[in-house]
Amino acid sequence: MSAIRYELIKTCKQSGARLGKLHTPHGVIETPIFMPVGTMATVKTISPDELEEMHAQIILSNTYHLWIRPGEDIIKEAGGLHKFMNWNKPILTDSGGFQVFSLSKLRDIKEEGVHFRNHISGEKLFLSPEKAMQIQNDLGPDIMMAFDECPPHPASEEYMKASVERTSRWAERCLGAHANPDTQGLFGIVQGGEYEHFRKQSAKELISLDFPGYAIGGLSVGEPKEIMNRVLEYTTPLLPDNKPRYLMGVGSADSLIDGAIRGIDMFDCVLPTRIARNGTCMTSSGRLVVRNAKFARDFRPIDEKCDCHVCKNYSRAYIRHLVKCNESFGFRLTSYHNLYFLLNLMEQVRQAIREDRLLDFREEYFEAYGFNKENAKNF
Amino acid sequence: MSAIRYELIKTCKQSGARLGKLHTPHGVIETPIFMPVGTMATVKTISPDELEEMHAQIILSNTYHLWIRPGEDIIKEAGGLHKFMNWNKPILTDSGGFQVFSLSKLRDIKEEGVHFRNHISGEKLFLSPEKAMQIQNDLGPDIMMAFDECPPHPASEEYMKASVERTSRWAERCLGAHANPDTQGLFGIVQGGEYEHFRKQSAKELISLDFPGYAIGGLSVGEPKEIMNRVLEYTTPLLPDNKPRYLMGVGSADSLIDGAIRGIDMFDCVLPTRIARNGTCMTSSGRLVVRNAKFARDFRPIDEKCDCHVCKNYSRAYIRHLVKCNESFGFRLTSYHNLYFLLNLMEQVRQAIREDRLLDFREEYFEAYGFNKENAKNF
Ligand SMILES: [Zn+2]
Ligand SMILES: [Zn+2]
Repeated sequence: MSAIRYELIKTCKQSGARLGKLHTPHGVIETPIFMPVGTMATVKTISPDELEEMHAQIILSNTYHLWIRPGEDIIKEAGGLHKFMNWNKPILTDSGGFQVFSLSKLRDIKEEGVHFRNHISGEKLFLSPEKAMQIQNDLGPDIMMAFDECPPHPASEEYMKASVERTSRWAERCLGAHANPDTQGLFGIVQGGEYEHFRKQSAKELISLDFPGYAIGGLSVGEPKEIMNRVLEYTTPLLPDNKPRYLMGVGSADSLIDGAIRGIDMFDCVLPTRIARNGTCMTSSGRLVVRNAKFARDFRPIDEKCDCHVCKNYSRAYIRHLVKCNESFGFRLTSYHNLYFLLNLMEQVRQAIREDRLLDFREEYFEAYGFNKENAKNF
Repeated sequence: MSAIRYELIKTCKQSGARLGKLHTPHGVIETPIFMPVGTMATVKTISPDELEEMHAQIILSNTYHLWIRPGEDIIKEAGGLHKFMNWNKPILTDSGGFQVFSLSKLRDIKEEGVHFRNHISGEKLFLSPEKAMQIQNDLGPDIMMAFDECPPHPASEEYMKASVERTSRWAERCLGAHANPDTQGLFGIVQGGEYEHFRKQSAKELISLDFPGYAIGGLSVGEPKEIMNRVLEYTTPLLPDNKPRYLMGVGSADSLIDGAIRGIDMFDCVLPTRIARNGTCMTSSGRLVVRNAKFARDFRPIDEKCDCHVCKNYSRAYIRHLVKCNESFGFRLTSYHNLYFLLNLMEQVRQAIREDRLLDFREEYFEAYGFNKENAKNF
């Protein structure tokens, strides 16, 4: 029996978005969901208790980073990642592929795997489908990702063809090497860039391997949002209805809503915590750079419409002061609010699906946030 | 009526230490007590909720730093420091004097006050008894400190005489300038270095001004602990029984116990949070540098005898990993534990006073901690 089972609860009559339940060894997740990222086995500045308080249902952690520090053997010895970091709800780990392709300048891609250098020590390393499985088996997340090649953007048709086919062969090797299919679900990753025929080929080959879930990779890598939406429009219909679909690396409010409308169930991104460390907050009326001088005497909460613990107890003036003084508690507060903001957005998205009004919700939300304004990119 | 009232509950028959209650506008504090330091209106990395959870009864904040950033006018406009930082229990602020004398290289001490340069911008500033009172009146803590001169260590007899006499004149000006004696208690600071006759002179002059509490300044500035203990032995008996005594800048476990034995009621120090940011933890068997390689696979809590939230949920191996990766959550965990450790120590001290056995407690505690070992300084 597979460790992961997706249950489709309903489809939004207005938008086609899916409301679902994802059954995992560490509990049931309501989808669509945003997954906070805990790169180093910690969601930066935030405690597991606080993640529960803000109703995070699942978090993501990074195979590559944990492999380097502290080493998957230590986490295995601790009883797995859940125990190591004191988080008892579901965890998803990526395959390490993205970091190998984005962090390492010196790399050599072979059929057997990728030779590259550790981005910290410079030490020579080798990551392959088998190694990525062994590490993730040792880490023990509920959901593992297949080791894929992340092609450069843009990539030529010739490059993309070779890459997609290698990713399929690697996916098959991942399945073969996966030691714990009963307790950890392995997702395949559909690649193919902006080439519709390669997305079809990739989806078809991966579906034939019957993964318990599918990710869509190679998006949110710098392409315009219209392109991302178009790729989703022709890719998600290729995927089986009874399996979850995960759009990797997406965390802006508009893309979460637009992704859900295109049938995506799971999202992750470092965006909310990364911008928080720069003193930038997401609010119902757009981004707010709390570091700005104009907030020095502004005793309102970050977002007057937010009911998170931060907005109930702390002012813009106080948070600005902390951020200006580089006090880590300031980044704790902005990180908390931003994560709450996106988790709460997804709850609103689920509610809109229940009520068959996700397109209406999108219009209202985009209007209030400012996405409909000119220069909406600033939001 | 004074804003601050000390109630002596009992005296330890074995040691002479005092168990008391300090009545403040924001509630009653059980003494002896350790006060966590929140320099920039935040106890670094820790939330007010967590301070309550670890039974912090009062915190200290710094007049000089808040004057510079964000400015006392902004905090006044926020409704005072309690509201600004979301801490509804008692607060004590220092006078700014210590920072002026320790942070600023360029300073000019006159009878009217001290001219010096802002340690961040280099801007020219002037702090005087009247200015220190205005700032603290605006910040709104329960307990304010008089503006004193902090003489260098060591100081000549001639220098010390002039300094002690100026501190007394400044103390009188502080009382005269204090705008809110009914809602904020102002403490005088006894100076005099290691000169017994100057301590006597300073105490006598300040007591004649009838402050609701007295601090002992100019200690823990680099002198051996035996000297500090000796100064306390002849200074605390000079102070009235019905007023609290506060030993400034002391936060090591041995000095807290030894100070209580010499009749001190209040302590503060950045030590627990400062060493936490270096990955150093206080434990019942001495200091533990969790960053050390030997803890990489140590899945025990920081202190097996500690029942704090951190020790109940996180291992040395996990905290070491976070600290090595410079993850702020790691410093949150070490800071939380260290503060809990000292607050809990003071609860044990109060219990030992109740049971008239503080000297016995000292022996047991010093033995377990390692203070009785050679090279005990390392503890
Ligand atoms: Zn909020
Ligand atoms: Zn502890």
